[in-house]
Amino acid sequence: MDETFGERLRARLLDAGPLCVGVDPSREVVRAWEREDTVEGLEYVALTTLEATVGEAAVIKCQVAFFERFASRGFRVLERVISEAHAAGLIVIADAKRGDVGSTNEGYAQAWLEDESPLCVDAVTLSPFLGVGALAPIFQRADATNRGLFVLVATSNPEGRTLQSARSAQHERVESMVFREVAERNADRDTLGNFGVVLGATRERPDFDLRALRGPFLVPGVGAQGANPTDVARLFEGCVEGSVTINVARAILAAGPEPRAVRDALRRWRDELRDVL
Amino acid sequence: MDETFGERLRARLLDAGPLCVGVDPSREVVRAWEREDTVEGLEYVALTTLEATVGEAAVIKCQVAFFERFASRGFRVLERVISEAHAAGLIVIADAKRGDVGSTNEGYAQAWLEDESPLCVDAVTLSPFLGVGALAPIFQRADATNRGLFVLVATSNPEGRTLQSARSAQHERVESMVFREVAERNADRDTLGNFGVVLGATRERPDFDLRALRGPFLVPGVGAQGANPTDVARLFEGCVEGSVTINVARAILAAGPEPRAVRDALRRWRDELRDVL
Repeated sequence: MDETFGERLRARLLDAGPLCVGVDPSREVVRAWEREDTVEGLEYVALTTLEATVGEAAVIKCQVAFFERFASRGFRVLERVISEAHAAGLIVIADAKRGDVGSTNEGYAQAWLEDESPLCVDAVTLSPFLGVGALAPIFQRADATNRGLFVLVATSNPEGRTLQSARSAQHERVESMVFREVAERNADRDTLGNFGVVLGATRERPDFDLRALRGPFLVPGVGAQGANPTDVARLFEGCVEGSVTINVARAILAAGPEPRAVRDALRRWRDELRDVL
Repeated sequence: MDETFGERLRARLLDAGPLCVGVDPSREVVRAWEREDTVEGLEYVALTTLEATVGEAAVIKCQVAFFERFASRGFRVLERVISEAHAAGLIVIADAKRGDVGSTNEGYAQAWLEDESPLCVDAVTLSPFLGVGALAPIFQRADATNRGLFVLVATSNPEGRTLQSARSAQHERVESMVFREVAERNADRDTLGNFGVVLGATRERPDFDLRALRGPFLVPGVGAQGANPTDVARLFEGCVEGSVTINVARAILAAGPEPRAVRDALRRWRDELRDVL
C-alpha cells in the first residue's frame, strides 16, 4: 500500500462518516440470533454483520476474543472476515489488545501487520502494561507496511480508572504518559499519523490536549456502554476532521438476526454520528 | 479435574523442581535451528522442545505470540502442543497476556479455560491494564474448572517500570494494587490458591509482602534477561515451597537444534534452579 494508514483512514472517514462497526460474535449474540454457539454460528453472525456494513460505513473492528474462543477454527473464520472485508474496500481493525516484551511483540507484529499473514489488518489494538517502549517492534512494522495501531490510553470501563489515572514518579498520569509516548511517535507526520489511541467516550475530558496526538482515535463506549454522540463531539472538539472513529457493536448487533434490521440499525447510527462529528 | 490448579501445580513443582520450560518458537529461534520459518519449522521447534521437557520438568509455558504469527495454522500447532503436553502429564501455561473489558473477557475465558476448547490449558497469563476487576469472568471460569491464571504485576523488562510503579490516588503503586487485588481473590484458600502473578526476577524486592499472595508465582527474566537463580531465591525467600515456577526459554532453546543438546541444557537449568529454591 502506498498511502499511509493515517491518510487512508482519514480519507475514508471524511467520506463515509465516523462509524466503526463492531464485529463482536459473542456467545450471547450468537444465541440471541437464534443460532447454536458453534463455529458455524460464529461465522454466520460475523459475515452477516460484515455484509450489512458494506456500502454504509468505512471501518469494521473485529473483537478477536470472540473468534479465539473457537481456537484455530475461530481464527479461520476471522481470516475469512478480514479477507472479505478487504475485498469490499473496508478498513479493518483487529481489536486484539496485544502487548508483551519487545522480542515477543515481534511475533505479534508478524501476525497482524505483515503482508503474508492471513490475519494482516489495517490496524491492531495494543495494551501498554509493559510500557509503550516495549511495543517498538509493532510501531516499526506498522510504519514499514503503511499500517497502523491503536494503543489503549483510557478505556470505557470503570474498573480501569484507578490504574489508568495513577501518577508516575514525575507526577504524570499513566494515561497521559501513554498518550504522550504515542504522540511523540507521530511527530514527523504532516497530516494524520499511523499511531492512534483508544479513548473511551464515557470519560471526562483528560489532562492532555487531544489535538497533540496528530493520529487517529478509536472510541468505544457509545450506545450500550452509556455515552451518547454529543459526549463524543464534546470530547474531540478541535481535533483534526476525520481522525475519530466511533465503535458501535452491541447496539447494532441487538437488532439481529434479520439482516435488514441489522442494516437499518447500522444506518441510524451512521446518520446520528455523522451529524454530530 | 478434581484437584485445584494451585494444589496440582504445587505437588508437581515439589516433585520436579521449579523449572518452567519456555516454548518460544520465534522466527529467530526457528532459523537458528536451521529450519525455514514456516508453520512446519514452528512445529518442529515446538514439539522438539516439548519432547526434551517430558520427564525432566513439570511445567511448560507456550508463548502464544509465536504461534499466532502463523494465524489459524499456527494455532493448530499450539493445539497439538497443548494436547501432547497434557498427554505427557505436563502442566501447561499459555502466555497470552490477554485482557479486555468484562464482557469480552468472557470470550477469552472460553478460549483458554473451557474444557471443550482445543486451547484449554492449566493456566493463562493476563494483562491488567483495564483493571483486575474487569478480569472477573476469567477468575470465575478458572475457579469453576479448577484451572488458574497469572496476572502481570511487575514484568522483567525495563520499559514497564514507570507505569508499573506509578501511584494511585490512594498512593498505592500499580504493581502493589494489582498484587493485592489478585491476593484478595485467593483469600479463602488453605494451601496454594489458583490465582497467581507474573513477577520478573530482574527486579528489586517490592513494597508488598510476597507471602500474602497465597498463590503461585510465574517468574521470567532468568538466563538471557540477566537475573540469576540466586536473585530469585532472595526475592521469594519465605514464600510457600512449591509456589514459584521459573521460566527459562532462550537459554535452553539456544542449545538447539540437536535434541540431545536441548535436553542437556534443560537438565542443567533444572538442577541449578532446584538447588537454590
